[in-house]
Amino acid sequence: MSNHVYKTLELTGSSTTSIEAAVAGAIAKASETVRNIHWFQVVETRGYVEDGKVAYWQVTLKAGFRLE
Amino acid sequence: MSNHVYKTLELTGSSTTSIEAAVAGAIAKASETVRNIHWFQVVETRGYVEDGKVAYWQVTLKAGFRLE
Amino acid sequence: MSNHVYKTLELTGSSTTSIEAAVAGAIAKASETVRNIHWFQVVETRGYVEDGKVAYWQVTLKAGFRLE
Amino acid sequence: MSNHVYKTLELTGSSTTSIEAAVAGAIAKASETVRNIHWFQVVETRGYVEDGKVAYWQVTLKAGFRLE
Amino acid sequence: MSNHVYKTLELTGSSTTSIEAAVAGAIAKASETVRNIHWFQVVETRGYVEDGKVAYWQVTLKAGFRLE
Amino acid sequence: MSNHVYKTLELTGSSTTSIEAAVAGAIAKASETVRNIHWFQVVETRGYVEDGKVAYWQVTLKAGFRLE
Amino acid sequence: MSNHVYKTLELTGSSTTSIEAAVAGAIAKASETVRNIHWFQVVETRGYVEDGKVAYWQVTLKAGFRLE
Amino acid sequence: MSNHVYKTLELTGSSTTSIEAAVAGAIAKASETVRNIHWFQVVETRGYVEDGKVAYWQVTLKAGFRLE
Amino acid sequence: MSNHVYKTLELTGSSTTSIEAAVAGAIAKASETVRNIHWFQVVETRGYVEDGKVAYWQVTLKAGFRLE
Amino acid sequence: MSNHVYKTLELTGSSTTSIEAAVAGAIAKASETVRNIHWFQVVETRGYVEDGKVAYWQVTLKAGFRLE
Amino acid sequence: MSNHVYKTLELTGSSTTSIEAAVAGAIAKASETVRNIHWFQVVETRGYVEDGKVAYWQVTLKAGFRLE
Amino acid sequence: MSNHVYKTLELTGSSTTSIEAAVAGAIAKASETVRNIHWFQVVETRGYVEDGKVAYWQVTLKAGFRLE
Repeated sequence: MSNHVYKTLELTGSSTTSIEAAVAGAIAKASETVRNIHWFQVVETRGYVEDGKVAYWQVTLKAGFRLE
Repeated sequence: MSNHVYKTLELTGSSTTSIEAAVAGAIAKASETVRNIHWFQVVETRGYVEDGKVAYWQVTLKAGFRLE
Repeated sequence: MSNHVYKTLELTGSSTTSIEAAVAGAIAKASETVRNIHWFQVVETRGYVEDGKVAYWQVTLKAGFRLE
Repeated sequence: MSNHVYKTLELTGSSTTSIEAAVAGAIAKASETVRNIHWFQVVETRGYVEDGKVAYWQVTLKAGFRLE
Repeated sequence: MSNHVYKTLELTGSSTTSIEAAVAGAIAKASETVRNIHWFQVVETRGYVEDGKVAYWQVTLKAGFRLE
Repeated sequence: MSNHVYKTLELTGSSTTSIEAAVAGAIAKASETVRNIHWFQVVETRGYVEDGKVAYWQVTLKAGFRLE
Repeated sequence: MSNHVYKTLELTGSSTTSIEAAVAGAIAKASETVRNIHWFQVVETRGYVEDGKVAYWQVTLKAGFRLE
Repeated sequence: MSNHVYKTLELTGSSTTSIEAAVAGAIAKASETVRNIHWFQVVETRGYVEDGKVAYWQVTLKAGFRLE
Repeated sequence: MSNHVYKTLELTGSSTTSIEAAVAGAIAKASETVRNIHWFQVVETRGYVEDGKVAYWQVTLKAGFRLE
Repeated sequence: MSNHVYKTLELTGSSTTSIEAAVAGAIAKASETVRNIHWFQVVETRGYVEDGKVAYWQVTLKAGFRLE
Repeated sequence: MSNHVYKTLELTGSSTTSIEAAVAGAIAKASETVRNIHWFQVVETRGYVEDGKVAYWQVTLKAGFRLE
Repeated sequence: MSNHVYKTLELTGSSTTSIEAAVAGAIAKASETVRNIHWFQVVETRGYVEDGKVAYWQVTLKAGFRLE
């Protein structure tokens, strides 16, 4: 692990139900084209409101993957 | 959308179960007197503890609504 | 309450399911040796990924307890 | 001036042309209902893009007015 | 306490003598129109100088009150 | 909109005339290879000076585009 | 001094009268069990309000002591 | 360039028309007494309001010059 | 006021009694060589401890003066 | 230089010996696929410990390269 | 690893030669009484000067260890 | 020490070899004209790259000296 190099992506995922599902969606989508995503960090949690209710959550995260 | 003006409120909601429920409670309460809340951003997530268990979550958010 | 002194610990808890469970785990573990934990504040939300899925959440929090 | 009390509003204004116009629009709108706005501070400068061009600027500011 | 919703105001108070008096002045003024102010947090401490002496202190704070 | 995933790029554009033109230049250049840039946020405004005059503005922004 | 190692504690003290007294109370309490506290830094100044008056100040500080 | 030492000044300039003009004014004024100003970075954008209109912009910047 | 240029100094003052006295000492000392100090902002409040008591306060501030 | 556009990558490099070597490793690895890396900025310095000794340093940096 | 709880210490180490040696010294000292230190993060790098030369480096870090 | 006043300079030094040498160079240069530099704090670590190698390090620091 001591000589790996990682690259970080910044992603934003959405979910109508929870912060966790918004993160999972962003990770799943990015994993379609990037292998080796290893960790993430939440950097912003936002959401949109309709009729006084949370319509969906929108979570921005940094995701790190190993350069091969 | 390019000529709207928004005002931001800072609110703190609470819930015994989840971060999401604390946000939803704050949005619902503010919507009783403010129309057009459009988005929110979580700015602080805290909580209170009793007997080594989380008694309730307390989440502070900014909520933006359109000035009419 | 006006003459209490509190001390803050920084803890990191983990969970395979949710941010809330990671916090609860850290609070429960610290409560084995520290009495009077009164409040907490989330300072960082991270996680680890395996095969494009969130393997576990890792949440860092500050927890305050009353010095006796 | 040494015994005035000020209150701060957080506003977001928009403009298709410039940062300065977005700020001016927010100040003008808020001045319809609040007297005595005295100063402002820009806290975030964003914008939206259509077809590779800036469609409009969206500037968030704090605006302070004197409580009477 | 677990189901209250709080709103935060940002205020700036002034005093020729101390930081504490500037805060007290802002809280007293806001309490004329807002009931239930419960807590505050200092966010900025500034001041103005005349002839090499502090003429007055100007302290910005966030103040939280319970929505009823 | 609730199930889109966005990726954020960090870009720096330059202009001899204005902050707005530096942003527009960065967005235009990135749009040559990335479709669907939707929003941006200014993160740093710098510039270079020659003979006591601003020679050019250099603005760093985050730009978000939708992953397809 | 060039080979000492210091450890930092985070403490919160309270006082009904001033920021300085809240800090002094926290330092005095911690000194009952920790020797060699050498310096402190204020990290947050809050307070609680009753009937439109500051009931007590609550100051969070970091305090550094030399490991022996 | 690899063995130069730079010093940074913090300046605040004003303009009734734009952010860019406020920066240019501060750079021009400082260049009367400091040679070799090489770069600047905007650190705060504020302004003052009269009758619901922006009376003037006030921009704080850091400016770096080479020590000879 | 709209065409003045200000320069900011960063100073640290000390006092055995209070935060306010540490600020006043720094302003007084700087005013011996700099005219026209107009405003200040506190950026850090620290102190040193001897025998479990605050020995002295050490406050860092930015002080702005008008360039003539 | 006034009409170049730069893109920023976020990278993490590792080294068993020094912060400088961790940065150099990340820059060398990224240069295998990206031409024209021009500058970098360190954003986080971490490390891992085994048996009370630093096993390796892990440094996160932003690296900017010119878009062609 | 998904059910471990970590505690973070904040430490300051010193060295007359390098940032790396100051970190190593702090980790070694803390390891005399705390087992299982796993990672660290540098939070501040300072130093003291004598006769225009760096007399010693003083580095503050957070160090995380597993609670057993 | 309790009645000294310090002034802080912001400096940027460079080195082809290390962060420590860049700091030492800035301190040495500033000591040619300022006596009594007492401490410094690193505020930014950057560098420039040529042909995939670090060409030189560029470190910005605050340096405090005693006003006499």
